Amino acid sequence: MADEALFEFLHMEIVSHVYKEQQSGKGEMDNKDRAVCVSVLEGMGFRVGQGLIERLTRDSPSFKDELDIMKFVCKDFWTKVFRRQVDNLRTNHQGTYVLQDNKFALLTQLSSGKQYLDQAPKYLAFSCGVVRGALSNLGLESVVTAEVSVMPSCKFQVVIQKL
Amino acid sequence: MADEALFEFLHMEIVSHVYKEQQSGKGEMDNKDRAVCVSVLEGMGFRVGQGLIERLTRDSPSFKDELDIMKFVCKDFWTKVFRRQVDNLRTNHQGTYVLQDNKFALLTQLSSGKQYLDQAPKYLAFSCGVVRGALSNLGLESVVTAEVSVMPSCKFQVVIQKL
Repeated sequence: MADEALFEFLHMEIVSHVYKEQQSGKGEMDNKDRAVCVSVLEGMGFRVGQGLIERLTRDSPSFKDELDIMKFVCKDFWTKVFRRQVDNLRTNHQGTYVLQDNKFALLTQLSSGKQYLDQAPKYLAFSCGVVRGALSNLGLESVVTAEVSVMPSCKFQVVIQKL
Repeated sequence: MADEALFEFLHMEIVSHVYKEQQSGKGEMDNKDRAVCVSVLEGMGFRVGQGLIERLTRDSPSFKDELDIMKFVCKDFWTKVFRRQVDNLRTNHQGTYVLQDNKFALLTQLSSGKQYLDQAPKYLAFSCGVVRGALSNLGLESVVTAEVSVMPSCKFQVVIQKL
């Protein structure tokens, strides 16, 4: 229990540190400040995702196609990082995927209900980076965004960048 | 495997981020800069340690004395956070404890041998904070330092602050 919590607590600390350092000396943060924070967290996530997928696929057979990779990310990878499988994976078969996690690990520490809904993006930037990093190491360049409409449920949208 | 690695990768990212931000725009870091980094990482660790021990001791019976608390930290707590027990616990029975971990989790990613020995303190500040935070929540204020003489073995010294 505490070992799962370790990642969650550490993640919370990082988010708060990155926002605090960006804010230091200023009153309110503007959109540009927030974008910097998101980008820093996303970058950290990217490198962590790369490292994790490398370990996780060391002994795996290679994947047969893009969908096969996405399924692996939704099952094995998600379980290792976020402790559950993605609940729902949808695709338009043209490189866009929507991964829905109904109880996203990094949101469960926040109170559900609408009151913290505007805070949610802070806590998703790192994870978007993790997914993008994992896919990148598997040969898929992508843009990953996330949205929350009801806590702690979360939808990640992955758009694969074709060459 | 990847789930253990998650904490380690994330920890690496934080260390590198904190040092990079402190260094930005300067050439070399001086001792004061390094002290700031250590203090930031130690503070993060402190809060994470507090959170973890709170979860871990929720259903535990209370402890009978200081040594009993230290033993709990060396066994249960260490296992949850650093994935093994402390190898050796020594005390002078006057509030000073030395915890030796012969294969410290957050050093195993660094190459052993002497070449990175001077880098080791960067990777121990967070953990010192974790230990101090855990003890603080159990009612013991302490000063925690760490030293490495041979990688990846590490000695933590805990000095309990008597009132």
